Amino acid sequence: MEINLEHGAGGKLTHELFNSIFYKAFKNKILEKAGDKAILRFGSTRIAFTTDAFVMAPKKVSGCTIGKLSVTGTVNDLLTCGAIPMYLSASFIIEEGYPIANLSEIVRDMSETAKISGVSIVTGDTKVVERGKADGVYVITSGIGKVIKNSNVSGSNAEPGDVIVVSGPVGTHGTVVMLARGEFGLYSSVSSDCCPLNDLVIPLIKKYGKKIKVIRDPTRGGLATTLNEIAKESKVGMVVEESKIPVLEEVKSACEVLGIDFLSMANEGIMVFIVDAKIKEKFLKDLRNNPKGRLASVIGKVVSDKEKKVVLSTSVGGERILDMAKGLPLPRIC
Amino acid sequence: MEINLEHGAGGKLTHELFNSIFYKAFKNKILEKAGDKAILRFGSTRIAFTTDAFVMAPKKVSGCTIGKLSVTGTVNDLLTCGAIPMYLSASFIIEEGYPIANLSEIVRDMSETAKISGVSIVTGDTKVVERGKADGVYVITSGIGKVIKNSNVSGSNAEPGDVIVVSGPVGTHGTVVMLARGEFGLYSSVSSDCCPLNDLVIPLIKKYGKKIKVIRDPTRGGLATTLNEIAKESKVGMVVEESKIPVLEEVKSACEVLGIDFLSMANEGIMVFIVDAKIKEKFLKDLRNNPKGRLASVIGKVVSDKEKKVVLSTSVGGERILDMAKGLPLPRIC
Repeated sequence: MEINLEHGAGGKLTHELFNSIFYKAFKNKILEKAGDKAILRFGSTRIAFTTDAFVMAPKKVSGCTIGKLSVTGTVNDLLTCGAIPMYLSASFIIEEGYPIANLSEIVRDMSETAKISGVSIVTGDTKVVERGKADGVYVITSGIGKVIKNSNVSGSNAEPGDVIVVSGPVGTHGTVVMLARGEFGLYSSVSSDCCPLNDLVIPLIKKYGKKIKVIRDPTRGGLATTLNEIAKESKVGMVVEESKIPVLEEVKSACEVLGIDFLSMANEGIMVFIVDAKIKEKFLKDLRNNPKGRLASVIGKVVSDKEKKVVLSTSVGGERILDMAKGLPLPRIC
Repeated sequence: MEINLEHGAGGKLTHELFNSIFYKAFKNKILEKAGDKAILRFGSTRIAFTTDAFVMAPKKVSGCTIGKLSVTGTVNDLLTCGAIPMYLSASFIIEEGYPIANLSEIVRDMSETAKISGVSIVTGDTKVVERGKADGVYVITSGIGKVIKNSNVSGSNAEPGDVIVVSGPVGTHGTVVMLARGEFGLYSSVSSDCCPLNDLVIPLIKKYGKKIKVIRDPTRGGLATTLNEIAKESKVGMVVEESKIPVLEEVKSACEVLGIDFLSMANEGIMVFIVDAKIKEKFLKDLRNNPKGRLASVIGKVVSDKEKKVVLSTSVGGERILDMAKGLPLPRIC
């Protein structure tokens, strides 16, 4: 058995790899709770810890560069822990012959994004590999944040009756990167949604505390994968109304032409929230008051379902099961 | 200007790259203090934070695999902060077509080394890149540890009068990896020193507290680079007696044949300590009582010198300046 590109697409095969190889070997409660982030306790302080490797190709698309993304991705990951992002590490794996000017540009983008996000890049490492053993440069960041008092978000906290909210249109980043590769002969004027979301998320956590049950950034594998992850972790089902899911018209048409579900495409500037139904209206209003959340929408609700299915009510009145992304060899989106 | 292999060798060119690109852009006090590790304060708790990318080629040499190294390197890095290593993250960049069985072996080695080191791998990420865009797999780990109370180690703490101690023979890991590549037609029966040093270092920190001024793992760039880094950070000079530096006979001869200074070769299982001269005898005895430190040696002393030179007293009675490693395109040693 060999690794194939779909193992890196974030969907079903990625999850299988995690379960069969990593979880089994590294077995510990923190990892099992949520593989892509960890909450560590030091006395009464809760520290969020997360890591991501960035191999995006191409390294620059409208609205996003690998430098911007490498900070944004980890900052947003920390936010999903209910944490204030504080410190980042940065490792670089660089191919021999890579122009130092390009490296400087990446580092400049990282620095600018760090400034906007209020984080410091406090430690790092650089390795060089021979020509043909990388693709220019790969950037790996890890992040540390302090979990906000009174916040308690976790993928396993969703309960029947809670509502599902997305903060903006879905599928944009993945579609923009895919089209930028030019393989499909389709072009688009849309920009990636890549953007650190501190100013959107932190005030909401401070205001609503434990009424926010889950926060997730639907990156690789898209909204479809994220909702299925939460359903599985919380042992619940979900009913989502297709017509309520915000999506940019251009993203939707491009995906239709290519026969790809935009719900499986990566996002880098939106969040999925599962919140107590009681705060629904106020929460949505607060989201929409921020330009980054102006297209926010309540897209469905959490239901009791032993089979942990995510059901999509389609606009034509039908229903279909929304599964984790699969069959999509879409690596290097992030 | 392009990145070349020497930029990744850990010596002079690596430092130049750090200073001209990274430090300048990411400018902050924590990074400036010591780029390859950070001490973060959360209330009265001091957290050590460090990261390393591992691109070792070949992935398996006598005594070391990329899996073992990826945990050992970060564990030892945390120890040099005076910290108890606690949590690790692990990111993988995997080339399409890489056998899952090999990935499992790497993960198994990581898991075993984590167990020995008392650390948990609590979070991770996996990315897949196309054939020809990596070399099998690269592993990136970040680590978090809790700084031991009463410990205060830093590269800038060395003072004239302090003594310099190494815990074991130098140059072994780098030489073993270089010979294993087979490029030079030289072979050796020596094993890498790769080994987590918790049981050697932690009791010493607890016992001697602030009398231990500096702890460093002389990895890429070897002892020569590490001593120069400390001299620079502490604004002191050093006098080192060549005859006191422990080195395995086979490592010494292999390096002689190749015209390489073993003092510039990477280590993965020894530490350099700068300690108060008053504890010299006891400290050395304690080191030697542990099998990992049985060849420990006091190799020299810290002196006052505005030019921050490291001077090597040679066995034949002469003196030479020991500079940071340079002119050695030796990437992918770790």
